[in-house]
Amino acid sequence: MRVAIICGSTSDKQYADAAAALLDSFGVTYKNFITSAHRSPNLTVKIASLVEKEFDIAIVIAGLSAALPGIIAAHTKKPVLGVPVASDLLGLDALFSIAQMPRGIPVASFGIGKKGAQNAALFAVRILALKDESLGEKLQEYIRREEEKIRKLNEPID
Amino acid sequence: MRVAIICGSTSDKQYADAAAALLDSFGVTYKNFITSAHRSPNLTVKIASLVEKEFDIAIVIAGLSAALPGIIAAHTKKPVLGVPVASDLLGLDALFSIAQMPRGIPVASFGIGKKGAQNAALFAVRILALKDESLGEKLQEYIRREEEKIRKLNEPID
Amino acid sequence: MRVAIICGSTSDKQYADAAAALLDSFGVTYKNFITSAHRSPNLTVKIASLVEKEFDIAIVIAGLSAALPGIIAAHTKKPVLGVPVASDLLGLDALFSIAQMPRGIPVASFGIGKKGAQNAALFAVRILALKDESLGEKLQEYIRREEEKIRKLNEPID
Amino acid sequence: MRVAIICGSTSDKQYADAAAALLDSFGVTYKNFITSAHRSPNLTVKIASLVEKEFDIAIVIAGLSAALPGIIAAHTKKPVLGVPVASDLLGLDALFSIAQMPRGIPVASFGIGKKGAQNAALFAVRILALKDESLGEKLQEYIRREEEKIRKLNEPID
Amino acid sequence: MRVAIICGSTSDKQYADAAAALLDSFGVTYKNFITSAHRSPNLTVKIASLVEKEFDIAIVIAGLSAALPGIIAAHTKKPVLGVPVASDLLGLDALFSIAQMPRGIPVASFGIGKKGAQNAALFAVRILALKDESLGEKLQEYIRREEEKIRKLNEPID
Amino acid sequence: MRVAIICGSTSDKQYADAAAALLDSFGVTYKNFITSAHRSPNLTVKIASLVEKEFDIAIVIAGLSAALPGIIAAHTKKPVLGVPVASDLLGLDALFSIAQMPRGIPVASFGIGKKGAQNAALFAVRILALKDESLGEKLQEYIRREEEKIRKLNEPID
Amino acid sequence: MRVAIICGSTSDKQYADAAAALLDSFGVTYKNFITSAHRSPNLTVKIASLVEKEFDIAIVIAGLSAALPGIIAAHTKKPVLGVPVASDLLGLDALFSIAQMPRGIPVASFGIGKKGAQNAALFAVRILALKDESLGEKLQEYIRREEEKIRKLNEPID
Amino acid sequence: MRVAIICGSTSDKQYADAAAALLDSFGVTYKNFITSAHRSPNLTVKIASLVEKEFDIAIVIAGLSAALPGIIAAHTKKPVLGVPVASDLLGLDALFSIAQMPRGIPVASFGIGKKGAQNAALFAVRILALKDESLGEKLQEYIRREEEKIRKLNEPID
Repeated sequence: MRVAIICGSTSDKQYADAAAALLDSFGVTYKNFITSAHRSPNLTVKIASLVEKEFDIAIVIAGLSAALPGIIAAHTKKPVLGVPVASDLLGLDALFSIAQMPRGIPVASFGIGKKGAQNAALFAVRILALKDESLGEKLQEYIRREEEKIRKLNEPID
Repeated sequence: MRVAIICGSTSDKQYADAAAALLDSFGVTYKNFITSAHRSPNLTVKIASLVEKEFDIAIVIAGLSAALPGIIAAHTKKPVLGVPVASDLLGLDALFSIAQMPRGIPVASFGIGKKGAQNAALFAVRILALKDESLGEKLQEYIRREEEKIRKLNEPID
Repeated sequence: MRVAIICGSTSDKQYADAAAALLDSFGVTYKNFITSAHRSPNLTVKIASLVEKEFDIAIVIAGLSAALPGIIAAHTKKPVLGVPVASDLLGLDALFSIAQMPRGIPVASFGIGKKGAQNAALFAVRILALKDESLGEKLQEYIRREEEKIRKLNEPID
Repeated sequence: MRVAIICGSTSDKQYADAAAALLDSFGVTYKNFITSAHRSPNLTVKIASLVEKEFDIAIVIAGLSAALPGIIAAHTKKPVLGVPVASDLLGLDALFSIAQMPRGIPVASFGIGKKGAQNAALFAVRILALKDESLGEKLQEYIRREEEKIRKLNEPID
Repeated sequence: MRVAIICGSTSDKQYADAAAALLDSFGVTYKNFITSAHRSPNLTVKIASLVEKEFDIAIVIAGLSAALPGIIAAHTKKPVLGVPVASDLLGLDALFSIAQMPRGIPVASFGIGKKGAQNAALFAVRILALKDESLGEKLQEYIRREEEKIRKLNEPID
Repeated sequence: MRVAIICGSTSDKQYADAAAALLDSFGVTYKNFITSAHRSPNLTVKIASLVEKEFDIAIVIAGLSAALPGIIAAHTKKPVLGVPVASDLLGLDALFSIAQMPRGIPVASFGIGKKGAQNAALFAVRILALKDESLGEKLQEYIRREEEKIRKLNEPID
Repeated sequence: MRVAIICGSTSDKQYADAAAALLDSFGVTYKNFITSAHRSPNLTVKIASLVEKEFDIAIVIAGLSAALPGIIAAHTKKPVLGVPVASDLLGLDALFSIAQMPRGIPVASFGIGKKGAQNAALFAVRILALKDESLGEKLQEYIRREEEKIRKLNEPID
Repeated sequence: MRVAIICGSTSDKQYADAAAALLDSFGVTYKNFITSAHRSPNLTVKIASLVEKEFDIAIVIAGLSAALPGIIAAHTKKPVLGVPVASDLLGLDALFSIAQMPRGIPVASFGIGKKGAQNAALFAVRILALKDESLGEKLQEYIRREEEKIRKLNEPID
């Protein structure tokens, strides 16, 4: 399996689904997990160990104080992609928690909510495509199609 | 020992000292620790276990994404008092991380920086005074003296 | 009675109820009050005096300029747990007012809204459990059940 | 005496002086006080009572959670002018606390720091000038001179 | 007439009504105006001149860049009370514009939206009560009734 | 004269100079003014009328509640370019005031401080170049040189 | 054609329409485009080149990281008017991206959302009116009618 | 070469150096570039094409409206790591620009300033270590040493 999609709460499920849908469209395998850095800290470490052993990348989705991406990253050397989720403070709390990691244990932050989850999935594909030419071609095709879709919204230019 | 004072970084030392000075003035025993939720996660769990076994209260001082207070609280049932420290974002990142904990594992947040560390110490004294009458008297005296100091800055008001 | 739950406005009732429900589940006794630091300042002092004489802990819930937790804390030596409530400014106004207390009179701040009220209740239980072994066991059990609930949302891991 | 200038801390003295200098220039009498809503709550009530009996207006200068203007306003019917002072959060904490008062007890907020203190003094003069024609003339003259000063910075515009 | 209530836009009408209702309850006379600092600058100056000649106080309600309170204040010596209204940025834009006036021309800022409009009205009453004993008594009675209402929400204390 | 550079305060002089230096380098004529929307409102209207009659564009530099650009724009049909200046709130107050104009009277906002003043000048050149071919060529040359400067900071990229 | 209205996403269409309606009312010709700085970068450059050759002004509407106005401005010397659109962060992300351009390539920022789009259109008219007297007269008439509409909302003032 | 380190301005050099020092310590090859999304857009595309052909990863450092990481990402399928740099707005402008990318073209955001640059380098190492066992061992060793350093700051905990 390539990607672990880890949610901090059942309410983050929709964002996990958005990431999963994109990975599916690239044929990238993934598995879903749910754990809380605070309420299930031991489970969190177990999942992080699983990431270390059996996955290439973790996408970690969390709101509020959003410690989960950083804690996963503390227990694996694999790249961790964090997705902040909005609640009371528009997601600023989660964005700051994920982006403002101290030196030493890196977490990559993406945008707040659905678009962030989708971009984390696309970023995972970019990483995997470094050593997988056919995935690189699919990515090229995805980028081409996206550009094409936008071009068709305009009248022809020159 | 009553209070564990735990810093997330050597640069937080001054705030630990401010908390310690106040605890000293009340004769409350404490011990200093330093650990990172991200760079030394196993040490963090060990210190949290020590808090559970040998301390009444943990004061946890951290900046940036400030996951440390929440992670300590996830590994002990003792009250955890979090003190946010300012860096790039004025301390907003640390304040939000500490205050915006999800339901289930509570952390008490105090003000940013030195005053927050001092108030966390005074709050620890308030907790300990619940079952320690002489400490309650010292606290009463502290409060009285603080009021007296301010009163003397004014001309007498009958 | 162990805990005074004090609201700054009738509109904060739902948060008081959330805190009360959690205290009930631990068998911790409490009593509800409502007062305004600004519109009923004398009543506020009376309630604070009652906290000093008859309660162990005050949970104080307030929005907007949220002076109430600090003013209660100024009239009792008991630990005061403040819960900010959101209105126009997402709760930033109340969070800053509660968290940014000057040195001398500490207030412990919790998260904005319902989760903050629940965590304040759980924090009160943590304080009371320091001297009440059976409460400590209930808390341990609560924490265990919460972890269990999350574990069951995942497929078994090793 | 017309105006009570009340500081929440000795560190706010410079702002009190800025307000006082302006009142002096209008011949408006004032008296300085210092008290903390949290550390000297009884003194605060005494000063508020004094405002009610012997002053027309209170200018109240405070930083951090800045409860002082609201608490003074809760104990007098006289107009209370609040001046927020910057600390960690640029003064946003104090500004929000002073501006975001709940319905019922009004506080007028001014700008952060020195200019706010000066404008509070000028606003006090505007209030007093409502029933004091000669003060109104001085105010008119002040406004005229300020405009004149700026005009002279430009080449003549016919 | 005592108070001019000036709105920056027809969409601010509800806040003007909230202020008016309170003034009515105190028997304070007022008149409504609507003008824009930007779209009707000459009308704005005319209204400000009318404030100078025929009113004691102006309550000015405005959203977005909210220049209106400051511009009214630039054309009258009477006290101007500004009420910020929320739009895209929660009212932060209007609050900052109204509160952060430069030295020389003061505007008193109140809270965002309805409560701010009501408090501006109550503040106007406080100003007018300085020279109107019967208004002072009504204000005292209002404050007493508000406290009474809150007291009755609690069981009797002592 | 093509451009009026209008400051809200003598302390904004450095930003006016930065704009002027750029205009000079393009041979665009300009004249400096200083006025306050609040302290010299009549002068402000006179300067705006002068802009209407004798200038093509106004660059207006202001801090704090920064009403000046909008008020100038209310008294002229010429394009007004606003430059926010930082004080207590990092320039957020001025940026919001300038950017968040209500429909009807537009102001173009630029970045905070020096870079904003420089870009306002360059934007003025872009407007003037619409009908001045030689100015368009200078602008093209400026853009080319800027790109060249950056290219030379790198090793050659074929 | 005078004005290119360029959207960053189909969801920005309503703002393009608001700008277009205003341009229509002034008889100013325009053409709509849609492109993404990130997903269709080559199309973006083509559209910018078209702006350079065939249009006077570009109004560019974008949300989130809102790179589009700056990238269009990097590929044309014509004035670019940026309109930030709100999503998760109230539009602060887009406003900061558009307003905080580095020195060298200027973008004029307008308010968030519909009013910003309308003001960008009015600003375009102000630019075009510099060399088009009849357009200047229409603008004068628009401004006069707007003032008239507001005046009629008030009772006659002397 | 593995990593392209791309700065948006010469003033970002110190952050590039911090990233480079970490890459050096892991023996990861890199090359420095400097380009502006706005002032040197063609050079930017050339560098992005070079990234596509000759590098595995781009670390892109930028302040203010910080369009550079997104534009690089629009012209390559390789993973792009963005590092926001603080200026007027504490780095919030750059952080929002980098983190809030629209769906389709992902950029991974890291913390503001030096720690962000260092973590971007460490994240690059995590990506490269996915297919380079010896690099994985160095990373493991780095993590172990960091934990060891912190452990030694404490007295031994059995």
